[in-house]
Amino acid sequence: MIALTDVINGSKLEDKQSTSNKSKMSLQRLTALRALMASQPTALAAYIVPTADAHNSEYIAPVDARREWLSGFMGSAGIAIVTSAKALVWTDGRYYTQFQNEVDLNVWTLMKQSLPDTPSMDKWLTSNLVSGSVVGVDPHTMTREEWTPLQTALTKAKMQLLAVDKNMIDLTRFQLNDLPPERPSKDIMHLPIEYTGKTAGQKIKELRDKMTEKNVSALVITALDEVAYTLNLRGSDINYNPVFFSYLVITPSSVVLFWRDGKIPQDIREILSEEGVDLKGRPYDEITRALKELARELSENGDGEHSIWLSSEASEAVHRAASGEGDLKKPLNLVSEMSPVALAKLVKNPVELEGFRQCHIRDGIAVVRFFKWLHDQIDGGTTVTEVQAADKLLEFRTEEKYFMGPSFETIPGAGENGAIIHYSPSRDGPQREIRANDMFLLDSGGQYMDGTTDITRTRHMGAPTLAQKDAFTRVLKGQIGVGSALFPKGVKGNVLDTLARKSLWDSGLDYAHGTGHGVGHFLNVHEGPAGVSWRPYPHDPGLAPGQILSNEPGYYKVGEYGIRHEDLVEIISVTNSSDHPRASKLLGDFDGRGVLGFSTLTLVPNQRKCLKLDLLDDFEIEYINAYHSRVFKVLGEILKSRGLEEDYEWLANECEPVTRS
Amino acid sequence: MIALTDVINGSKLEDKQSTSNKSKMSLQRLTALRALMASQPTALAAYIVPTADAHNSEYIAPVDARREWLSGFMGSAGIAIVTSAKALVWTDGRYYTQFQNEVDLNVWTLMKQSLPDTPSMDKWLTSNLVSGSVVGVDPHTMTREEWTPLQTALTKAKMQLLAVDKNMIDLTRFQLNDLPPERPSKDIMHLPIEYTGKTAGQKIKELRDKMTEKNVSALVITALDEVAYTLNLRGSDINYNPVFFSYLVITPSSVVLFWRDGKIPQDIREILSEEGVDLKGRPYDEITRALKELARELSENGDGEHSIWLSSEASEAVHRAASGEGDLKKPLNLVSEMSPVALAKLVKNPVELEGFRQCHIRDGIAVVRFFKWLHDQIDGGTTVTEVQAADKLLEFRTEEKYFMGPSFETIPGAGENGAIIHYSPSRDGPQREIRANDMFLLDSGGQYMDGTTDITRTRHMGAPTLAQKDAFTRVLKGQIGVGSALFPKGVKGNVLDTLARKSLWDSGLDYAHGTGHGVGHFLNVHEGPAGVSWRPYPHDPGLAPGQILSNEPGYYKVGEYGIRHEDLVEIISVTNSSDHPRASKLLGDFDGRGVLGFSTLTLVPNQRKCLKLDLLDDFEIEYINAYHSRVFKVLGEILKSRGLEEDYEWLANECEPVTRS
Repeated sequence: MIALTDVINGSKLEDKQSTSNKSKMSLQRLTALRALMASQPTALAAYIVPTADAHNSEYIAPVDARREWLSGFMGSAGIAIVTSAKALVWTDGRYYTQFQNEVDLNVWTLMKQSLPDTPSMDKWLTSNLVSGSVVGVDPHTMTREEWTPLQTALTKAKMQLLAVDKNMIDLTRFQLNDLPPERPSKDIMHLPIEYTGKTAGQKIKELRDKMTEKNVSALVITALDEVAYTLNLRGSDINYNPVFFSYLVITPSSVVLFWRDGKIPQDIREILSEEGVDLKGRPYDEITRALKELARELSENGDGEHSIWLSSEASEAVHRAASGEGDLKKPLNLVSEMSPVALAKLVKNPVELEGFRQCHIRDGIAVVRFFKWLHDQIDGGTTVTEVQAADKLLEFRTEEKYFMGPSFETIPGAGENGAIIHYSPSRDGPQREIRANDMFLLDSGGQYMDGTTDITRTRHMGAPTLAQKDAFTRVLKGQIGVGSALFPKGVKGNVLDTLARKSLWDSGLDYAHGTGHGVGHFLNVHEGPAGVSWRPYPHDPGLAPGQILSNEPGYYKVGEYGIRHEDLVEIISVTNSSDHPRASKLLGDFDGRGVLGFSTLTLVPNQRKCLKLDLLDDFEIEYINAYHSRVFKVLGEILKSRGLEEDYEWLANECEPVTRS
Repeated sequence: MIALTDVINGSKLEDKQSTSNKSKMSLQRLTALRALMASQPTALAAYIVPTADAHNSEYIAPVDARREWLSGFMGSAGIAIVTSAKALVWTDGRYYTQFQNEVDLNVWTLMKQSLPDTPSMDKWLTSNLVSGSVVGVDPHTMTREEWTPLQTALTKAKMQLLAVDKNMIDLTRFQLNDLPPERPSKDIMHLPIEYTGKTAGQKIKELRDKMTEKNVSALVITALDEVAYTLNLRGSDINYNPVFFSYLVITPSSVVLFWRDGKIPQDIREILSEEGVDLKGRPYDEITRALKELARELSENGDGEHSIWLSSEASEAVHRAASGEGDLKKPLNLVSEMSPVALAKLVKNPVELEGFRQCHIRDGIAVVRFFKWLHDQIDGGTTVTEVQAADKLLEFRTEEKYFMGPSFETIPGAGENGAIIHYSPSRDGPQREIRANDMFLLDSGGQYMDGTTDITRTRHMGAPTLAQKDAFTRVLKGQIGVGSALFPKGVKGNVLDTLARKSLWDSGLDYAHGTGHGVGHFLNVHEGPAGVSWRPYPHDPGLAPGQILSNEPGYYKVGEYGIRHEDLVEIISVTNSSDHPRASKLLGDFDGRGVLGFSTLTLVPNQRKCLKLDLLDDFEIEYINAYHSRVFKVLGEILKSRGLEEDYEWLANECEPVTRS
């Protein structure tokens, strides 16, 4: 599945026909907000409402969906700005139609981010507000990386960016007696060492070693998946992401989790103690107060200068608290850069890698069984809707060991819906059936105790057209181009992107999204800081063995069909003796830098009848046949052992070798 | 030829055995400089000596070679820092040996930039100087883009970066009675409209239109090639670059050239007047004074706020003068970004493009005749040294119409010297002969009135080894990969880089430099802001028809041989009816973005006997044969018409088609 941030602005692939009514409440909500803005100690000329939580999460919980509540616009990306006279939302081409369907256009203005003539937010603010204006924003909802350039732009225009600590949308809801939902705070579970491969104690020891190197007195972990990773804990506060609302502060002598009311369940404390961590709890809401206390303590310590380390993607609010800004005479020094936890979890350890391999086998079984079932239904004339297909796939996955739930909302795009990159069928209203003449794109994934999967396969339910076969084959050539590539250790993922597009580009075709994203280990299905895209990933530390990436080129014919082939791949070192199709031909090791390649984790065949064989060269045909042979060998045995004869037969046929003549 | 900035740090390909003696003067010069540093109004804890002139030129004139004079180190890249106790030079792996040969190591310390443990300059300064230290630098020798981050780093460490207006190396030379050479100031020539395709008047009108859009009151042009381009003038103040030391300031009502003593020759003034420009002259040395005057005038004008536009690559000194900093109470607003001249000259007009095509035909004749001659000599047992080869090549070029001189110092790398990327053979001392068992890499180019060439061909003088054929063919596959690529209009050059490396990467080989650079039109052979590299080109506005790039992958076996194939290519729009090998197969136009490809300008065959044909696919073989057939058709006719029968026969043989079996 493609990361939200990695879809080209300007793509019109995701205009979503929403059936929801336009909000009647919109003006009332705006009026209340504007009254609040005017009544601030310094009146606000504008208030910014990002789509963000305090942890820079890609997906947010309903309690944090403030822009949605205010504007009525439910798309997953967009930033609102409200002034006394105007209310605007910046969003990209995926959401223009949805915006117009959902939002009261008498009150709200759509700012089409994708169009070159649309001013950026800072340009709009500086040219529409008068000199001296104060622009407010909740500093919990903006990272320092976002805050700083906006502040610079406003300061240049003699305006001020003001951190308004109490969220004004929450205040507005309170005033209107329309309280926001509770912040989720579900139970947490411990993930045992046989899945994580490293104790929390060991992880924290390694972080403390890095803290010593950096000469910092504390490390503040703000990203939810980083907290979960560090403590070997998992939660379920955000859909599909096994994380829990929390912060973690590590000093040389303490590990403090800010979670719920601060009371950590006895069993969790005990098991973490066994893993070498004496975990203290404090209430989630006390994080900024605690950081200010810490800053004061450190600054009063008197034994020299102290620094606090946090991610540059931590919120502006956390940055301010940790520096003691506004509180201490001389703010503490902050080391605001890549989080060491992000770098640690990027490279999976051997146990995590083995878990990835194992869960992909089980996931492959579920997906193969699903496609066999689907073809049976369609061939037999049974009606299957997109939603029913997604539900059935979940059934198959649920039968698999260690399955914990989907890793994101399944994208079952039949025909024209396949061309909508982040499509999700509505469960209300009329349902799209999957028809015998449909190309069907299915992007889905599972969370397993031992890993996370993310797979897209595209299958035609009947007879593909020549153009469909052409595009299907070019996309597969791109996937093979990346999947079979060798490259020097340490290059950034960007350098691989063109390999995925080359065959499409040769005929003037392309896709409006990136080629690959990182994947967490039973964590977020989109994980930074590396990725494969023409777009730079500024924090990508360079590719290294043990990283997991998706490899997912596509092609989208708007209004007709979509094609995407997505595998997860593991980065491996390649020498002459490696199990890699190019290993035997290696002549060098990049002057000692080391040779990297991919090993494919995903195990589901690609539909042979969609291939246009004359587009494939010998290497590609061998590659496809070797992959299918491996899929059949690994999955076939399991299907057989489970007595799933018909599935076995179906898979055997799907994995037959292709030959050109 | 590869841009200086586009070679990987850490590559050891350019260790150059210099025969020059270590400078005996080094300590004396340092002592004099240190005395000056101590006697400043604020004593300097450190003084920085970059390798730079006031125009951010890639190649500098001897008068600006201050680091060289001070340290004795003659390499083309390196920055010196002098403190009361230390003297250091930061340079990269190309120059480590040269440094040790040329420099008095009792006095100077080499900072190996390429090693990960070497601190950067700002890290070194902030950790070796005490809080409160003042670091001096001549603000003419540092761009604002370089100045700002260094200043930020020093300020953070409570130090100060001080602009010392009088260059302290020049002062030291004066004190030691060792005056710097004169700044060159040779005569300038006008380049007629039949070569430039656009009058200076038209160019300035277009710049003024952009100034109106930007709402700026003046445009300051500081890059030497930008001044030359704008005025359709050429000079010869810097080797190989037909530019002249000058600045150009354009306001809505005036065009002022800062050059020599300000007296512009009558004929130049008249011809520019015919081109619609009333050119005023002022002395070169008055630029900062003039900018300060301008800033004052504009700020006192009283008709609203004024801004001045200059390139972010203009010097810190020019930035300060143009803002009236230190002079005006309220400094003028600067628009410091990409120069509009850089963007204008990036896209060549039809006359310039036709000139490029024509001069490449003449250049091809010269290079073909040279290689025929060289093979004759070697085959006949005549001794030819690298230097003699370069001289002979110049003879052949000199016979061609409109030839004005080499576009850079010819790189004639025989055998192991071919692996030294910026190799230049010394004319003193023993000479390397080109031997019958040598691979010979020849990178050279010409300045013509109608365009600039830059070509590398690699030929074996006898029988290539299998490994040489393998590498030669992989490099050529990479060049074809780029040369035959189709891609969406507007993507950055970076996305093409991997296509050039793919075949090498497949066997664990690579090259430690970028793949392509822009080229000026009878201007600098390296021209920004676009390029093809894994390294980002932050100012690349996106590829567009009419841009010229080099396409030059390589492979270097240190100590044995180097291979590079370099063509210049023109970016063209491609539709189904275009003359492009992929045109007929086009299915789309990237959803309206438009399809781009390359047309190769360079016309010299690649040596067929170095090809390993089983590495080439059908498309590549057709591509090579079509190219050779075109080369023969275009050049053969000319050779014949000139009565150069033997050259014609040789070329005919070199251009015979290759077949796999």
